[in-house]
Amino acid sequence: MSIAKQYARPLDLKNGRIEMSHGAGGRAMAHLIAELIAPAFDNVFLAQGNDGAVMPAVSGRLVMSTDSHVVSPLFFSGGDIGCLSVHGTINDVAMMGAQPLYLSAAFILEEGLLLADLKRIVDSMAQAAMQAGVPIVTGDTKVVERGKGDGIYITTTAVGIVRDGINLSGNLAIAGDKILLSGTIGDHGMAVLSQRENLSFDAPIVSDTAALHTLVETMLASGANLRVLRDPTRGGLATTLNEIAGQSGVGMLIDEASIPVNTTVAAACEFLGLDPLYVANEGKLVAICAPGDADKLLSVMRAHPQARQAAIIGEVSAERFVQMTTKLGGRRIVDWLAGEQLPRIC
Amino acid sequence: MSIAKQYARPLDLKNGRIEMSHGAGGRAMAHLIAELIAPAFDNVFLAQGNDGAVMPAVSGRLVMSTDSHVVSPLFFSGGDIGCLSVHGTINDVAMMGAQPLYLSAAFILEEGLLLADLKRIVDSMAQAAMQAGVPIVTGDTKVVERGKGDGIYITTTAVGIVRDGINLSGNLAIAGDKILLSGTIGDHGMAVLSQRENLSFDAPIVSDTAALHTLVETMLASGANLRVLRDPTRGGLATTLNEIAGQSGVGMLIDEASIPVNTTVAAACEFLGLDPLYVANEGKLVAICAPGDADKLLSVMRAHPQARQAAIIGEVSAERFVQMTTKLGGRRIVDWLAGEQLPRIC
Repeated sequence: MSIAKQYARPLDLKNGRIEMSHGAGGRAMAHLIAELIAPAFDNVFLAQGNDGAVMPAVSGRLVMSTDSHVVSPLFFSGGDIGCLSVHGTINDVAMMGAQPLYLSAAFILEEGLLLADLKRIVDSMAQAAMQAGVPIVTGDTKVVERGKGDGIYITTTAVGIVRDGINLSGNLAIAGDKILLSGTIGDHGMAVLSQRENLSFDAPIVSDTAALHTLVETMLASGANLRVLRDPTRGGLATTLNEIAGQSGVGMLIDEASIPVNTTVAAACEFLGLDPLYVANEGKLVAICAPGDADKLLSVMRAHPQARQAAIIGEVSAERFVQMTTKLGGRRIVDWLAGEQLPRIC
Repeated sequence: MSIAKQYARPLDLKNGRIEMSHGAGGRAMAHLIAELIAPAFDNVFLAQGNDGAVMPAVSGRLVMSTDSHVVSPLFFSGGDIGCLSVHGTINDVAMMGAQPLYLSAAFILEEGLLLADLKRIVDSMAQAAMQAGVPIVTGDTKVVERGKGDGIYITTTAVGIVRDGINLSGNLAIAGDKILLSGTIGDHGMAVLSQRENLSFDAPIVSDTAALHTLVETMLASGANLRVLRDPTRGGLATTLNEIAGQSGVGMLIDEASIPVNTTVAAACEFLGLDPLYVANEGKLVAICAPGDADKLLSVMRAHPQARQAAIIGEVSAERFVQMTTKLGGRRIVDWLAGEQLPRIC
């Protein structure tokens, strides 16, 4: 973008801050994009420099998903709002059994945001997108006045394609199906919360934020009869299971002892009176598959680095609510998250 | 969505307000979506009820564009943030010569937002999407604390396809090409500003917010050799011309007398010391075409209800800056917007 050359003075990436002019559509905005954003995301589509990007023709059904990210604080152990915004949207597309192809990124910046923080976030997005092999092809930048935002909000949208023969949806679970979970629960939510509340535990709690599309690819390639994939983010595992149960008109019976929880996360939850079943994850998935394929699917998952601790955690029932056999041997209803356990976790 | 049936008490759409729980991923959020958002946007893709939507296969190159909308105030003469967010993103895709197919919508709601206002905005989006024939197939809802937002921010993303043989891009303007404008400038920006500042003029200034894809279709069907289409939003006509000049490595010479400006807009601009060349539009486009096709293109545009006042406003030059012949007969440089003329106009 030739506008960068028109500036005698580069951005002050150490002490500079976002000003209202950075969102006004004029020279300052062009400069910010040309110097700070475009070089990080660098790819042939973004380089077209238009208000939208043109990509090659695709074959397969189109999949689209979007998420706004408002996590607070912006930086936490294991990640930041930047990589989170890339992972989260890639995962939503992957959960449809699709190959994620392209991302868009729209920024709402608060006046006063440090350019250094913006750069750190943009670089983190760029790295996450590169690692995932999903380029950020188009974007937008808006600026709101001090006190009308919270540093930065990022909305990403992903498009992908799904091959013929793959049909995953929350309404396809059948009584008798097995429920698999790819690993420990509660890591992301507790990592953000401990950062926010300035809590420290013996071992740091690290967010599990990650793009899961290669894990999904492996699972699809196994030939297992998959019905549903979903990432248990806001509202946690409990809410995700209730959503699927509602969509499919079924129930679930899960076994508490089979659900992996990191020791530190379990301790932090107990200390704070939180139930890990309701705490957000950003690098885990729930899979529901035909009962005869569960063992095969489990072994394929465990062979993938992102699902070493995968487990069969229960099965789909006909009873239309979600129940859990507790470690003490009883049974309890696992309801939807009712209030706001952890606001602004993603 | 069966969750709605689980609520004994419907949302209070008269006095109710957004609470933090509406963004927590649990029951309250599901209720908000099921009762207020999903019924308005109703379509088979959204009804899948998953975190992403699966659509049929498409043929043609893929086009993608995204925009966050932070306009203040939320309601203005001629529109609101809802229809604006649909029109703006459809237009960015249309400017690539593409047929817009699907939209996503991500909401960042501020705690305390009146549900009645949210409903009015969502209904306006739904109507704009229906009129444009572009369904909102997937979405997201986040809530931020009071004082961390400004009522509502909406990020929309559009995907579309572009047929073989159509190649429009900001870098394709050639010296000698003609520059056409589809109508009056400054209407949107001055409509928002007069609402914001509580200014009243003899005649109300009405935003031109509109989806331009059928106008673009007509222009493409004319067979005119189009090089560039762009909608002059933030930064106005002046900034758009500078962007294109920069991308193409050319200049522009436009004629002030040929640029249509509504009388009230011109008067309001003069009163406030604003230059309409820098004021945002949301329902206008700039077209650059081969010189021999300009008259044909102009007559096709004028036959479309959205471009009755279309005009040839100048031509592309080799001089690498944008100049304007003024009504007084002189020439002046038309530079990029330098500061922030009108913040949060879209």
